[in-house]
Amino acid sequence: MSAIDDCPGRITATEIETIEDGVSRTVVDDVATEEPLEIRLVAGTRSQAAAITMRTPGNDFELAAGFLFSEGIIESVSDILRISYCIDPAIDNEQRYNIINVEFASSTLPDVNALERHFTMTSACGICGKANLEALRDRGVVPLPDGLPVPIDSIYSLPERMRESQRVFHSTGGLHAAALFDSAGSLIAVREDVGRHNALDKLIGWALLNNRLPLREQILMVSGRSSYEILQKTVVAGIPIICGVSAPSSLAVALAREFNVTLIGFLRGTRANVYAGTARLGP
Amino acid sequence: MSAIDDCPGRITATEIETIEDGVSRTVVDDVATEEPLEIRLVAGTRSQAAAITMRTPGNDFELAAGFLFSEGIIESVSDILRISYCIDPAIDNEQRYNIINVEFASSTLPDVNALERHFTMTSACGICGKANLEALRDRGVVPLPDGLPVPIDSIYSLPERMRESQRVFHSTGGLHAAALFDSAGSLIAVREDVGRHNALDKLIGWALLNNRLPLREQILMVSGRSSYEILQKTVVAGIPIICGVSAPSSLAVALAREFNVTLIGFLRGTRANVYAGTARLGP
Repeated sequence: MSAIDDCPGRITATEIETIEDGVSRTVVDDVATEEPLEIRLVAGTRSQAAAITMRTPGNDFELAAGFLFSEGIIESVSDILRISYCIDPAIDNEQRYNIINVEFASSTLPDVNALERHFTMTSACGICGKANLEALRDRGVVPLPDGLPVPIDSIYSLPERMRESQRVFHSTGGLHAAALFDSAGSLIAVREDVGRHNALDKLIGWALLNNRLPLREQILMVSGRSSYEILQKTVVAGIPIICGVSAPSSLAVALAREFNVTLIGFLRGTRANVYAGTARLGP
Repeated sequence: MSAIDDCPGRITATEIETIEDGVSRTVVDDVATEEPLEIRLVAGTRSQAAAITMRTPGNDFELAAGFLFSEGIIESVSDILRISYCIDPAIDNEQRYNIINVEFASSTLPDVNALERHFTMTSACGICGKANLEALRDRGVVPLPDGLPVPIDSIYSLPERMRESQRVFHSTGGLHAAALFDSAGSLIAVREDVGRHNALDKLIGWALLNNRLPLREQILMVSGRSSYEILQKTVVAGIPIICGVSAPSSLAVALAREFNVTLIGFLRGTRANVYAGTARLGP
């Protein structure tokens, strides 16, 4: 049985051996699908590949939109004319759902230098955590306003509520998630992916495509560690509070402090570490 | 207190609020440092940026060597003349440990198209999991030989042994790790990083710089999920068995089966799932 027969489903059924106390048996198990997605930018008759990411199929349009927004390639939903799967007849069926065309309202292709900056930064613009924060300010990202006071008690329940909403995780045990809650702790939306960044891009893309940005009144919960890139996406989407069950990195902490984001880590039971923005948390 | 004052240490001490049952107090906590690293390729008087990765400082030469090897840019340690931190006087002190020069023995720069393929693959070379596996075969990667039979009992202890060896994890609670064990389950080497891929690149780079590749007699244990890229690095380093406490993705399973790698997931206590290569496991 091939592990990729069911492409592009979110779940791939595959035959495995499960061993318990030395006793082995053959079972059919679900694993999370991982397939490449190419995001192509189209303006008039011109097109350009912007990125390839390994992702779990599903919510692909949101992923493309959220990625382009959080990386600064587009500024609003009105920049996008249409998003579609590639229907080039030269591309065979199996690959058809692995290429997305993002067609721009403008007749000129957007500048993807911002994307390339990740890979070809020179010493002139700095290779250092502080330089990363400066680059974000140069993009016009400003500190979030104060406000959205939230009682710590409604934060405690978020990991459990996110976990309950993870459909694909339940069957595979192996997916990251990003979930959006209102200030009372009610779930608004959740997205899953094999990649931490993709899960958040899908969530932000959902908000963008539904004209809900910036997310000034919401709380973000992520399943993995809070790294620099996760915090970058958070602040660009305008989300004032981000929670994780795991640890943040040093640069995530620095970014949260610089841009006035409340950063909570090690959220487990009735314990939490607050690395930045404690003023938003009440008793 | 700035979160990036201690750059480039592996650990950054930072003042946080810790809340337990609604009671808050200020403590100084350790977080894992995250800083960008630019890997530059140098041949004669020419140089070229190959990649920028967000990493935890430490074992940076191994990270650069392992990254270039597992991505197919170099084939052996003899391709490298010297690895050093950038000492360009135009680069200020804070950034000095965030740029690595990898000087090549050859006077011509290596082809970095293999790297760019991740980002600019066209439909001509395929955007689909199967095409990824083909690209790996086209690089000359072949299925691993059979052998290295290992009793399942010595596999069970690996997660605990890796965890015990994680120095930075102990103080920060937030680092990924990749560890190498011999077939009796004794630890050979462990590397840590905020990034899963970086931890494995550091481990492979250590093996490369110490002339230990291919790692035909060793077992790899990783802290995070086993994705396509993790399996790619595993097979390129010649490691016949990879274990994780988490789930693999569909494409990781497909790659393991194609290249005869034993892939174990959900390794918890005396339970394990074997997704490929069961023949290497004995009672």
